[in-house]
Amino acid sequence: MSLLEATAKKTKGRKGVGVIDCDIHHTFQDIKQLFPYLPRKYRERIELWGANFGGGPGTMNGGNIGKRADSFPPDGAPAGSDLNFMIDQLLDPFDIRYGILTGEFIACTNTADTYYSAALCSAFNDYTIEHWLDKEPRFRGSIYLPIHDVAASVREIERLGSHPGMVQAYVPSGSHHPYGNKMYHPIYEACLKHGIKFTMHVGAIGDGMNAPATNVGYPSYYIEYRAARTQAYMAHMASFIFEGVFEIFPELQVAFIEGGVFWVAPYLWRLDQDWRALREQTPWVKKKPSEYFLTNMYIGSQPIEETPNRQAFDTLFEAMHAKDKLLFCSDYPHWDFDSPKLVFPKMDKETTDNVFYYNAAKFYGLSIQDNMEE
Amino acid sequence: MSLLEATAKKTKGRKGVGVIDCDIHHTFQDIKQLFPYLPRKYRERIELWGANFGGGPGTMNGGNIGKRADSFPPDGAPAGSDLNFMIDQLLDPFDIRYGILTGEFIACTNTADTYYSAALCSAFNDYTIEHWLDKEPRFRGSIYLPIHDVAASVREIERLGSHPGMVQAYVPSGSHHPYGNKMYHPIYEACLKHGIKFTMHVGAIGDGMNAPATNVGYPSYYIEYRAARTQAYMAHMASFIFEGVFEIFPELQVAFIEGGVFWVAPYLWRLDQDWRALREQTPWVKKKPSEYFLTNMYIGSQPIEETPNRQAFDTLFEAMHAKDKLLFCSDYPHWDFDSPKLVFPKMDKETTDNVFYYNAAKFYGLSIQDNMEE
Repeated sequence: MSLLEATAKKTKGRKGVGVIDCDIHHTFQDIKQLFPYLPRKYRERIELWGANFGGGPGTMNGGNIGKRADSFPPDGAPAGSDLNFMIDQLLDPFDIRYGILTGEFIACTNTADTYYSAALCSAFNDYTIEHWLDKEPRFRGSIYLPIHDVAASVREIERLGSHPGMVQAYVPSGSHHPYGNKMYHPIYEACLKHGIKFTMHVGAIGDGMNAPATNVGYPSYYIEYRAARTQAYMAHMASFIFEGVFEIFPELQVAFIEGGVFWVAPYLWRLDQDWRALREQTPWVKKKPSEYFLTNMYIGSQPIEETPNRQAFDTLFEAMHAKDKLLFCSDYPHWDFDSPKLVFPKMDKETTDNVFYYNAAKFYGLSIQDNMEE
Repeated sequence: MSLLEATAKKTKGRKGVGVIDCDIHHTFQDIKQLFPYLPRKYRERIELWGANFGGGPGTMNGGNIGKRADSFPPDGAPAGSDLNFMIDQLLDPFDIRYGILTGEFIACTNTADTYYSAALCSAFNDYTIEHWLDKEPRFRGSIYLPIHDVAASVREIERLGSHPGMVQAYVPSGSHHPYGNKMYHPIYEACLKHGIKFTMHVGAIGDGMNAPATNVGYPSYYIEYRAARTQAYMAHMASFIFEGVFEIFPELQVAFIEGGVFWVAPYLWRLDQDWRALREQTPWVKKKPSEYFLTNMYIGSQPIEETPNRQAFDTLFEAMHAKDKLLFCSDYPHWDFDSPKLVFPKMDKETTDNVFYYNAAKFYGLSIQDNMEE
């Protein structure tokens, strides 16, 4: 019995509300599965050249080509590409009532050729609806945006934002500008119009036409790129706050997925302190930065830092109001998958239910009643 | 009586070892004071064009043009340019036994024209020796490096590294590459040869030819640039560790000045956890990242984050071993100056003496005996 099976066994039958998993990477077996949704010119180019997203830094990922070794379906298909295998390995054993599909294709949002990005995003979004959302009621989808073309991103939200299965606009953490920048505001307006959320997921940092992976240039090793995830989210968080995004769009809700967890509180202390001293420079920022965090932002739980002791965990957890701000994410099928059973130390029932279910239900507007049958 | 004077009054006569202040920004009254140390071609250019360091993002700083309003000498000279005024306002009242001069000229290290940078750095270093170190025994100096030319930086260390008043090679946190990169290693070799430390100080992030100020592009407001300081130090810290700098140069000691404090522990948790999973990719990194922090790095105390309560302060302080790793920095004469009296909550005598004196004495190799007279 593998660790996963042992863990799943323990989790199955958990009393209460079950789990909402906010980060499940589904994919296709072959990019040709997107061909029914792609214009002919891109089908022909991909046939000839391959998909060619414009490359990263040449670093490897961890695990088994980035995945859990046991997450490949028996027929050898890509991890995350087989709906039934995913249900059997993830949704059923861990009592996942809703699974937010985040896709294994985020690089397509980031190509320099924004027409190509827009075509790929639309194709992947259509594929997600037809092959995943239409086939399993527990899944919810993410609208991939060709983020380097804001107008095209808005059009994609207009096209799919009111689909009942789509819960969020979805962009990589790597970007041309911090996401508070005024150029992105039409996207937030479109999200609010359609009642969907704006979610960043780690990806594309330092890739293609984006800035170097750190603000002091390109690092050398994958582990440094991994560490740079937090830096990108710090920059986006400050940008949202100090550009006044949550004053302009008070109802906007945003999530930061896969960038770590415990950097949040010390960073907000820094921002609060500096805001107090410098707020005359950004008078449209009317509240302490940490207050905007409480009202407008959520943090994905994975990968959560291991603390040296329980007291440090509790202190940081409480300081960032994680009880109300954390969304459980498994990151399935990636090698650094967090099991619902193993990821946290023992917490009280209310905190556990919030982090595994109610926070995500509130963020995504998911029904609570429908999922209460035991 | 100003707050400063009131504070100084309380501090004066502090029993014990007094204070080592590791970040005092001295400067000249007029850049022409550097002319005796500058080649003619640069004197002529500065006469004609001004000093022209290649500009930042156009954001303002805080306070009174970045300074404490009361730090300008009575004759209206630049803050930090009058040695006697500085002694009267900072060294004497706060019982500062050693003051590490870090200069108010860091932009000169970062021009695209590295010949110009090299000339300015040498001139400022000579000026510091002649006008500051030679005149007041409590001061110690920093060797400004023209960091974009590694060979020239090494030459400057060779020229001045054995001067008894010079304690560190000094570079801005903004850089072309993370400082663990192999291209910088000759600098560390030269530091060790001359028994000096390698110290980064916030500056030049996003300026000139450096990467954008965040890894997701240029932010809009000064407070965001301020928040990006931490991001630069995160990148440098990971780079030092994962490039194996402290395996190649086990005796090298480096300091991170003015980038905040409480980001350190959660960041080291992240690095330790990822290193455990990914260490086969960097097999030359033989210890946990947090162990290299303990043996080879120091953190400047200013600006320290205000925590929501004492318990959070103690937890983060202990988690980063601040008792042994923190160097007191006032950042005089900047507006966000930290007074030795007000900066920390009450701590036990051993911790207080370490942070205000012994850690810096150890890092810089400063005499302890000479300063024990009360």
